[in-house]
Amino acid sequence: MASIKLPGFSSSLIKARFLPFNHDGSRGNTVVCIRRDVDPLSLEFSSTNSLRTLSLRSYASSSPVISAKLTTEASAKVIDGKSVAKTIRDEVAAEVSRMKDAIGVAPGLAVILVGNKKDSATYVRNKKKACESVGINSFEVHLPEDSAEQEVLKFISGFNDDPTVHGILVQLPLPSHMNEQNILNAVSLEKDVDGFHPLNIGRLAMRGRDPLFVPCTPKGCVELLHRYGVEIKGKRAVVIGRSNIVGMPAALLLQREDATVSIVHSRTKNPEEVTRQADIIISAVGQPNMVRGNWIKPGAVIIDVGINPVEDSKSPRGYQLVGDVCYEEACKVASAITPVPGGVGPMTIAMLLSNTLISAKRMHNFQ
Amino acid sequence: MASIKLPGFSSSLIKARFLPFNHDGSRGNTVVCIRRDVDPLSLEFSSTNSLRTLSLRSYASSSPVISAKLTTEASAKVIDGKSVAKTIRDEVAAEVSRMKDAIGVAPGLAVILVGNKKDSATYVRNKKKACESVGINSFEVHLPEDSAEQEVLKFISGFNDDPTVHGILVQLPLPSHMNEQNILNAVSLEKDVDGFHPLNIGRLAMRGRDPLFVPCTPKGCVELLHRYGVEIKGKRAVVIGRSNIVGMPAALLLQREDATVSIVHSRTKNPEEVTRQADIIISAVGQPNMVRGNWIKPGAVIIDVGINPVEDSKSPRGYQLVGDVCYEEACKVASAITPVPGGVGPMTIAMLLSNTLISAKRMHNFQ
Repeated sequence: MASIKLPGFSSSLIKARFLPFNHDGSRGNTVVCIRRDVDPLSLEFSSTNSLRTLSLRSYASSSPVISAKLTTEASAKVIDGKSVAKTIRDEVAAEVSRMKDAIGVAPGLAVILVGNKKDSATYVRNKKKACESVGINSFEVHLPEDSAEQEVLKFISGFNDDPTVHGILVQLPLPSHMNEQNILNAVSLEKDVDGFHPLNIGRLAMRGRDPLFVPCTPKGCVELLHRYGVEIKGKRAVVIGRSNIVGMPAALLLQREDATVSIVHSRTKNPEEVTRQADIIISAVGQPNMVRGNWIKPGAVIIDVGINPVEDSKSPRGYQLVGDVCYEEACKVASAITPVPGGVGPMTIAMLLSNTLISAKRMHNFQ
Repeated sequence: MASIKLPGFSSSLIKARFLPFNHDGSRGNTVVCIRRDVDPLSLEFSSTNSLRTLSLRSYASSSPVISAKLTTEASAKVIDGKSVAKTIRDEVAAEVSRMKDAIGVAPGLAVILVGNKKDSATYVRNKKKACESVGINSFEVHLPEDSAEQEVLKFISGFNDDPTVHGILVQLPLPSHMNEQNILNAVSLEKDVDGFHPLNIGRLAMRGRDPLFVPCTPKGCVELLHRYGVEIKGKRAVVIGRSNIVGMPAALLLQREDATVSIVHSRTKNPEEVTRQADIIISAVGQPNMVRGNWIKPGAVIIDVGINPVEDSKSPRGYQLVGDVCYEEACKVASAITPVPGGVGPMTIAMLLSNTLISAKRMHNFQ
């Protein structure tokens, strides 16, 4: 509720609640002011990206009695995923070092890459570098695009049996002639650091059960909320997107933490209305700038998983990366938001390292 | 939008939208009517269980100009679970008969009961009778309360290996000295007709995967929606309760059918507000009459899973069974509702028979 002085009117005559949004969350709000000496007045509040306009109208006239423009500042706190990821990597490094000193064992992560997709090769290289930086041993297998499925299964089987390997990751996507489900199912449940095995997902969904691993990206989203002290219990959370890799497990995780969760997806008829009810939004759809300012409840916390390249002639690369959420607009409504890049992105690898450490500790019964 | 003639006012002077509920779903609605000849008028609409009152007020006077009472009738269609369950049992019986004729095999269901709980014994007896009525062979093991866990596991193992058994059901709850998780995990995934195995739940949650079995009660809820032609895709659905047996899998099932699903639970701060947004409500909490008329969006469809005994001195048994939803109030707001008893209850056993048939058909590759 805001208090605003209106020139030409004594403040005692004007009594109205100023709400930045209607109850249904749409922009613009009309408040009827009851005055016994003149016509009822209507106070209108409209908002664009950076400007909010306040108009006072009389029912007897269609033109505003007064109009005032208020400039608002971006106020959302930036959730710095890069910095949190750095902290987590330091924590993992300290634990790896303690483990080596105590029992002479370092965690090991095996990555299997098939084919020559440039993106995939970059991801694998980054994972390898991240492992090295925290003292985790990394094992890499790079197979040609036209390898047989059997070849991949053979390497998975070898890593399953190798006691120095505590996590196995098959870089996706696989070439189209391979059955992804067969290959992922071949990874031993105890080494499934990606957490994508249906048995892990089932345990994540069930009360009283615990998954061996929580999928890295959703785990990173919730870790950001924890590290920034965002309360989850009892809050309304909306997850936009229902992929097996992010949206669905993110919803299950928030549910485990006692949020009241709704899932918005491509078949949702009024995504903006549902999203506007959320105290916490996790968006993972891959649609640049889909979530606009007016989708967001004032004060909501936003975790933007989307990393979408959009054309940008001014950038030397010819494109820039943007999230699912229109950052510029969201900043003015949300209380906290992850930037893109530098938000959820760095958290995924940090969580992979953390899962590999958890696996090694569990296998060696090291507390 | 309703049109109402108001005595003493020419209809051309009154222009207002009549909505039975506010946008936020709360009862009572005020509409400002703009008239140029007199004070603005306010039209108020308030509602109790069976009576709706319409009042026209002038801003200049606090007493209504006119007031009219409208009596509303219970209008919800009754979703007759007993009748649908009967139809499904007839369908299962026909398929069992066709299977016997074609390949000489009848489906078989094994039920393991431990201890002397009266309720459990009744459930097991009902399941056995239902099997007999559709031509499914039933096998029953009844062990004393103080049996060792190993004893139960031995019988499960025997049924796992028995080709005449296509479904295995361990009646819950088990005596407290047994580890329920160990015992349920021992049931072969291919014979888990209850669908409670975490791998089944994981597959239910994942897009592109299919569970071998869908848990009986949630399957029964969604089957009722299908048989009554209730559209699920794109609708807002609220599941109240998040148990592993009903609430959670019901939410996953509705999600698979493209509803926009929210889960309300004991930590939800405003359950009535969230529930009021639903086109479809599935309630499974075990709280008699918790969901009141004003929790329900007009026209919503309600599936009430609760079966709660409440004291009733007039009943010869001293109690009556009621649902989670206040039936009397809900009838006046919802478009369709399951009664208690006679709604979801009979569907659970019908779905168990259906799952046992599915299992036998799959094992014998019978289409």
